[in-house]
Amino acid sequence: VLNKRIAVLAGDGIGPEVCQEAVRVLKAVSEKFGHEFTFDRQPMGACAIEATGDPLPDQTLEACYLADAILLGAIGDPKYDNNPAAKVRPEQGLLKLRKSLGLYANIRPVTAYEVLLPYSPLKDARIAGADMLFFRELTGGIYFGEKGRIADSAYDHCTYSRFEIARIAHLAFKAAQNRRGKLTLVDKANVLETSRLWREVVQEISPSYPDVAVDYLFVDNAAMQLILNPKQFDVILTENMFGDILSDEASVIAGSLGLLPSASVGETAALFEPIHGSYPQAKGKNIANPIAMILSAAMMLEHFGLQQEADLVRRSVQVALDKKIVTQDLTPPTLAYSTEQVGAFIAYCV
Amino acid sequence: VLNKRIAVLAGDGIGPEVCQEAVRVLKAVSEKFGHEFTFDRQPMGACAIEATGDPLPDQTLEACYLADAILLGAIGDPKYDNNPAAKVRPEQGLLKLRKSLGLYANIRPVTAYEVLLPYSPLKDARIAGADMLFFRELTGGIYFGEKGRIADSAYDHCTYSRFEIARIAHLAFKAAQNRRGKLTLVDKANVLETSRLWREVVQEISPSYPDVAVDYLFVDNAAMQLILNPKQFDVILTENMFGDILSDEASVIAGSLGLLPSASVGETAALFEPIHGSYPQAKGKNIANPIAMILSAAMMLEHFGLQQEADLVRRSVQVALDKKIVTQDLTPPTLAYSTEQVGAFIAYCV
Ligand SMILES: CC(C)[C@H](C(=O)O)[C@@H](O)C(=O)O
Ligand SMILES: CC(C)[C@H](C(=O)O)[C@@H](O)C(=O)O
Repeated sequence: VLNKRIAVLAGDGIGPEVCQEAVRVLKAVSEKFGHEFTFDRQPMGACAIEATGDPLPDQTLEACYLADAILLGAIGDPKYDNNPAAKVRPEQGLLKLRKSLGLYANIRPVTAYEVLLPYSPLKDARIAGADMLFFRELTGGIYFGEKGRIADSAYDHCTYSRFEIARIAHLAFKAAQNRRGKLTLVDKANVLETSRLWREVVQEISPSYPDVAVDYLFVDNAAMQLILNPKQFDVILTENMFGDILSDEASVIAGSLGLLPSASVGETAALFEPIHGSYPQAKGKNIANPIAMILSAAMMLEHFGLQQEADLVRRSVQVALDKKIVTQDLTPPTLAYSTEQVGAFIAYCV
Repeated sequence: VLNKRIAVLAGDGIGPEVCQEAVRVLKAVSEKFGHEFTFDRQPMGACAIEATGDPLPDQTLEACYLADAILLGAIGDPKYDNNPAAKVRPEQGLLKLRKSLGLYANIRPVTAYEVLLPYSPLKDARIAGADMLFFRELTGGIYFGEKGRIADSAYDHCTYSRFEIARIAHLAFKAAQNRRGKLTLVDKANVLETSRLWREVVQEISPSYPDVAVDYLFVDNAAMQLILNPKQFDVILTENMFGDILSDEASVIAGSLGLLPSASVGETAALFEPIHGSYPQAKGKNIANPIAMILSAAMMLEHFGLQQEADLVRRSVQVALDKKIVTQDLTPPTLAYSTEQVGAFIAYCV
């Protein structure tokens, strides 16, 4: 029986709606197993800018430090999107949160769910059976290097240290040991010095994991292989910018962003969020798919060591999918259930 | 009637075989129209390293300076691929060639050929009708910034000046005017300062092309949209690294790399090459598809102002496709023609 404090950053757009369903499912889990989860709701993103002028108010960051884990819905608002030069933007809050909490590894499973095959842009035979796990470095590289303007130019510096590479590489190797024993490092070692360091460090670490086969792929080739033959991949390890691009690419080949969860972990903190965005067009309509958020909560349970509970949530999601208790992204509108109905059904199955 | 000197860098793997067919077609064109094309064959890539220790020998670079245009087959050899730290690599020759000749714009049409639809990893309805044109900046950004090691770290600097952005943006806007009037800038302006400069410059230039509608897409979203709905794109403009990844991604959705040409142009020089690589497994087997190389030669003819000649080559290629005079990548092996047969047929149609 565990006692856990969970910071809930519902965020913008459909974030609050899907968070509510994840919390509902977590409450069902805690009742069933006798855990005590307390939920600490805090503003972040565009809604926090409206309220306080800051996408990540101190109080929110404080609550995240104090929490055992963080659930994040989604952040972002179109109002900021076409104004990248705006002084304050929702994404700044997210980047600051990652950096402040040291969430250096973004972990994303991409699985070709049977039920999604008709929705995949890929032909069934290409995607059926694909099952990969991304490890994207999240607090280094060009995202966090020095950036600025000089005269008529702009610059962004990309830096990686051996330490930054090694710590996420170890996580990825360990994950590969528990899966199919294959790790693919994606880089641009034929052009970038940082990529050459990534290869060096991974090559050095590799002998400690003799049961993991390592291969190396240039990022342009990886962008092709993900579509040509997604089944070839098991664990994919890559740096921040490449991971941003490739994990999003991989997500859509699976058929819907609406089922895919993610975890971002560091030495002490851990954050769980669906990979989809704030989907502002659907806000307040009770049509958003809550499953990615619920599966993110399942990853959190696993992170707490609650394997049985996590499995139960995943099985309950599978029941909903099998019985077609799903939102309109996965079924014709006349047969669709609402966000709340799907969440309630999954909580009920728990 | 024109007199043109063409440097031919056949390169490695299947490069020499496909180059030979492009030259064959160009000879047919020059005979028919009375032009005088002289071909100056020079080593580059892995073969040049073997011969001289240098992937881009001075004599080759010299020949390129003197030429009116350059045809490049393909470079690269697996022997160098898994050894990115090797002091001399074929890619260095390519990067040096681009920089020395100032080939700042890489232009890649990606078209969903009818005949390729069965080979596309995408479902037909997604890809049929897609027709986009990439403008990838080719001599700036993180490829050519300062790079190195400090203590336990490696770094790569990404820099762009207004001038570098503006010159390729103007090319892209002009191309959009002659197409469907839409230009999409792909960047990561929510994170990168260089991307914010790209947006600024494109926004400044945009009013000079009132007939072109501009939109902006973050690179992670672009990686998804290319697969979800490739038909939405007309001209895509982006920086060097993003262009490397996205144009390769886009190429595979079209069904085969074997049909897709590219041009790299600067103020004075111009280079034409297929987008496929050196495909070492097929080397010497007379099975490589020469069409991407032949269509690259057609882009060269257009660059010379020989529109009629370029159109004739393209129509001849279409005849080969329609009559299924194609290599084994596009037809069952028993019905396949050889590289030479396909080239000879297209030359004959000219
Ligand atoms: C919003 C943006 C800064 C962020 C990123 O690029 O990391 C997002 O795309 C993501 O992948 O979480
Ligand atoms: C070989 C490599 C350096 C090159 C690049 O990254 O530019 C290639 O991938 C390309 O796109 O022409």
